[in-house]
Amino acid sequence: MSPTTLRTLAAARSCAFAVPALATPTTSIGAGHSVIASRHASRASSSAPPPGAFLRLNADHVTSIASLLSAPSSSLLTTISTSDSSIPTADASDLESFNTDWMNKYKGQSPLVVKPKSTKEVADVVNYCYEHGIAVVPQGGNTGLVGGGVPVHDEVVINLSNLNNIRSFDEVSGTLVCDAGCVLEVLDNHVGEKGYMMPLDLGAKGSCHIGGNVATNAGGLRFLRYGSLHGNVLGLEVVLPDGRILDGLSTLRKDNTGFDLKQLFIGSEGSIGLITGVSIVTPRRPAAFNVSVFGLNSFEAVQKLFPKVKASLGEILSAFEFFDAHAMSLVKGHATAGVKDPFEAAHPFYVLIETGGSNKDHDDEKLSALLEELIEDEWVDDGVLAENTTQISQLWALRESIPEAAGKAGRVYKYDLSMPVEKMNELVEEMRSRFESKGILGADKMFSSVVGYGHIGDGNLHINIVAKEYSDEAEREIEPFIYEWTSNVNGSISAEHGLGRMKAEKIGYSKSDESIRIMQDLKKLFDPKGIFNPHKYLPGA
Amino acid sequence: MSPTTLRTLAAARSCAFAVPALATPTTSIGAGHSVIASRHASRASSSAPPPGAFLRLNADHVTSIASLLSAPSSSLLTTISTSDSSIPTADASDLESFNTDWMNKYKGQSPLVVKPKSTKEVADVVNYCYEHGIAVVPQGGNTGLVGGGVPVHDEVVINLSNLNNIRSFDEVSGTLVCDAGCVLEVLDNHVGEKGYMMPLDLGAKGSCHIGGNVATNAGGLRFLRYGSLHGNVLGLEVVLPDGRILDGLSTLRKDNTGFDLKQLFIGSEGSIGLITGVSIVTPRRPAAFNVSVFGLNSFEAVQKLFPKVKASLGEILSAFEFFDAHAMSLVKGHATAGVKDPFEAAHPFYVLIETGGSNKDHDDEKLSALLEELIEDEWVDDGVLAENTTQISQLWALRESIPEAAGKAGRVYKYDLSMPVEKMNELVEEMRSRFESKGILGADKMFSSVVGYGHIGDGNLHINIVAKEYSDEAEREIEPFIYEWTSNVNGSISAEHGLGRMKAEKIGYSKSDESIRIMQDLKKLFDPKGIFNPHKYLPGA
Repeated sequence: MSPTTLRTLAAARSCAFAVPALATPTTSIGAGHSVIASRHASRASSSAPPPGAFLRLNADHVTSIASLLSAPSSSLLTTISTSDSSIPTADASDLESFNTDWMNKYKGQSPLVVKPKSTKEVADVVNYCYEHGIAVVPQGGNTGLVGGGVPVHDEVVINLSNLNNIRSFDEVSGTLVCDAGCVLEVLDNHVGEKGYMMPLDLGAKGSCHIGGNVATNAGGLRFLRYGSLHGNVLGLEVVLPDGRILDGLSTLRKDNTGFDLKQLFIGSEGSIGLITGVSIVTPRRPAAFNVSVFGLNSFEAVQKLFPKVKASLGEILSAFEFFDAHAMSLVKGHATAGVKDPFEAAHPFYVLIETGGSNKDHDDEKLSALLEELIEDEWVDDGVLAENTTQISQLWALRESIPEAAGKAGRVYKYDLSMPVEKMNELVEEMRSRFESKGILGADKMFSSVVGYGHIGDGNLHINIVAKEYSDEAEREIEPFIYEWTSNVNGSISAEHGLGRMKAEKIGYSKSDESIRIMQDLKKLFDPKGIFNPHKYLPGA
Repeated sequence: MSPTTLRTLAAARSCAFAVPALATPTTSIGAGHSVIASRHASRASSSAPPPGAFLRLNADHVTSIASLLSAPSSSLLTTISTSDSSIPTADASDLESFNTDWMNKYKGQSPLVVKPKSTKEVADVVNYCYEHGIAVVPQGGNTGLVGGGVPVHDEVVINLSNLNNIRSFDEVSGTLVCDAGCVLEVLDNHVGEKGYMMPLDLGAKGSCHIGGNVATNAGGLRFLRYGSLHGNVLGLEVVLPDGRILDGLSTLRKDNTGFDLKQLFIGSEGSIGLITGVSIVTPRRPAAFNVSVFGLNSFEAVQKLFPKVKASLGEILSAFEFFDAHAMSLVKGHATAGVKDPFEAAHPFYVLIETGGSNKDHDDEKLSALLEELIEDEWVDDGVLAENTTQISQLWALRESIPEAAGKAGRVYKYDLSMPVEKMNELVEEMRSRFESKGILGADKMFSSVVGYGHIGDGNLHINIVAKEYSDEAEREIEPFIYEWTSNVNGSISAEHGLGRMKAEKIGYSKSDESIRIMQDLKKLFDPKGIFNPHKYLPGA
């Protein structure tokens, strides 16, 4: 079947857009139970840990810190009045956006936000804080989901937004070197003009900083194809907690001279260093994209489809996402603009695949050959293929609007879990049967829905549990059960969001006591006074 | 031009195999100087550092260590006589292959080789050594190039060859979990049967262990496409210097719960832990390969060709290697079986490209379209395209036989350097003009040839300097100049071989004092008694 045939057949049907004439399988793979898999970010505890033994800022400190900055009036915001007339006193409201995370979940009371204009300024301010025992919070675009980038109490916020220069881009190797405060989308556009793209993409790309991405080891939409930042980051410039600058801003792809120190800072969430510069390798931007969505009758069919698609599409496969009937139902029931169900009938599971390649004709041919086989050999029940970029966006919207739709349906308990692909199904099944056996799942019950979706390709399960309201009782029905279950299958309770303030004390579900002790030793080695991002990341930090 | 046309035109010519009818450019890109770039592994110093304050083994220690093993007779080799008749006394010659590296450059005098059969046995032996202050050397396939895997003095060798089980392979995710002592080629064959391949490939694949690969952060031939082990290794099981087992054998692709500790052990060369198990993600094995070699008239043309080829071949490009006329001349003059120059005329530079993809027709089409453009727009002077797997091997042999040919031409000073692509050329130019200005380069001079080759795609330059004989005088003509030059362009004096015993004291050319101090602090944190792989990796270790 050629791409033309596929589209012609599709056009003859009444779906929203191109639907291949998929045969109806007479047998189904797997048991066909309506299993749901899903994801979430744990509800934050509103109670803050007690302040540590850090110094409380006074006017002298503020004056001293201001003297380290080349342009204090545009680099410093403080509610503390000083005798220095060049340091205007701000209202607490001016500092509000730096003290509060974007979800409005976590709130600190820092009286001082510093926005240094150079790495040296960062280092000087950090060194001053170290010498005086003043706690600091490194802050990027403040788009994190676990409260890692805002103060817990009155820590000094060091915000990187003034450190936003692109230092160099090598068009031969595709290596980008830039300040940590550069916005991801700005970088993607910059290298895009040269035919490259950033190896990661996030919903928050318009606000998030590359430094924050690296500090939280952000995953995102291109992970399946381009892998983790541990493989893509070539070098980092980091200010250590005592103010030393660790200049590891290498552009080398290969360097086996000693421990790869930069790896420690990738995903360290500001606990042992403040990233001021990033060197990163960027892949070629594919010339063509395709997106297709399938309906399947069991999770086993989803699971079997993944290696099949990987084998057929090989190097051009760039996404393999799944979502369940309950997710589709939420999306349809709480319609977001532009989101339509392209299928005539409902299916227990859906899979979205994306290809990105350097030759559109070749990609179309590969995909058509695959679709033909999926139909003839009954791997899927139905399918649609986007014919243009608008349809590509519409298909992606089915998957991407699930969190928004869940939010409209009720209060959502969200979990972001990583586990072996074959386990994803089991967890959601157990979660639902657990609720059902207690009579707390249904239209007017404690929980109205358990929806599942995620990145099959990354083993990343997203569970959204829609509740009537947030309550300790509801939370107890889910936790610690869900963490224990994840722990028992050697899963991770945080696939991509990190620990921050939200899960610092829960790391034990995913890491051994031995590992945690070593992490605490590392924290102590780099930050003996514990001034960097206190009360976060590790137990007792 | 279709692949058929290309081959037909090629077949009409008198070359060894398929040569496209490439037009002769009337203008050349770049200055056309006959610049040479190349690679090497520094000659070892034969003098060993003095022994540390480690305990000298006696019969009681051997008996105690034997008691920790389930099968001492097949897990232990010792030259120390004990009163235990179940522990036979070996000749020194029986331990020779464990005490000497494969190049016969580095030699120790260990009286005890232990080959544990389980991770617990490794841990028990290590713990015993830790408690008694006995130094140990972790050893894999003993294929290293820097003397990292053999004793310097009488350290106990812990050889991993008995720890060689494949623990699991997940055909959905392509995740392999295995013992550290598994041979790379065995693993590649194992996953190959399921349509996958290991993300790294080395000349030593028939002997090297995956644990050793990880411990040295091996690069190899698939690096350009599949990236570094820092991105591909998912988890490690490691025995720490005090015998604790760090069980981080995760199969998760995403896990943001705390510091990514495994990263510290990748490339740590046995200095802070002994890797006993590896979890690694494997990519799909491409269904089709193509190889083409071009002749070019300048290094600038080589440099310009790389982004052009990357843009055209995109996701199917799997290698972009270069070598110079001097290298080709050596290969032709010191012929290795099966190696032929496929070109009618000599060219200052040669480039080998490889593609690997899931659809042969598509790959052929992409490559043909590229070749046509390269000819018409005069990117290259000439080119050949392999028509079958035999020819693929023959073209690869041109590049791969360079070290062997250099070895036949004289004593070779080899350097393995990493640097920005645009700098590769300059270094070789300076090296040659330095020798020429001193009158020491020529047929009967101190140096007969400076040949250059390497992985443009990885920024990895290999310099082979062919000398009449090894001498301190010759070495002084090269070093420290070459290290200083590399250091000045922020390059690495070890791109992929590591530091080991050979370059432990030279790390300062590539890393700052600050970085080295932190590395030494890390070494101390993990190995306070310094019993793991002493006298290697770091200054003063």
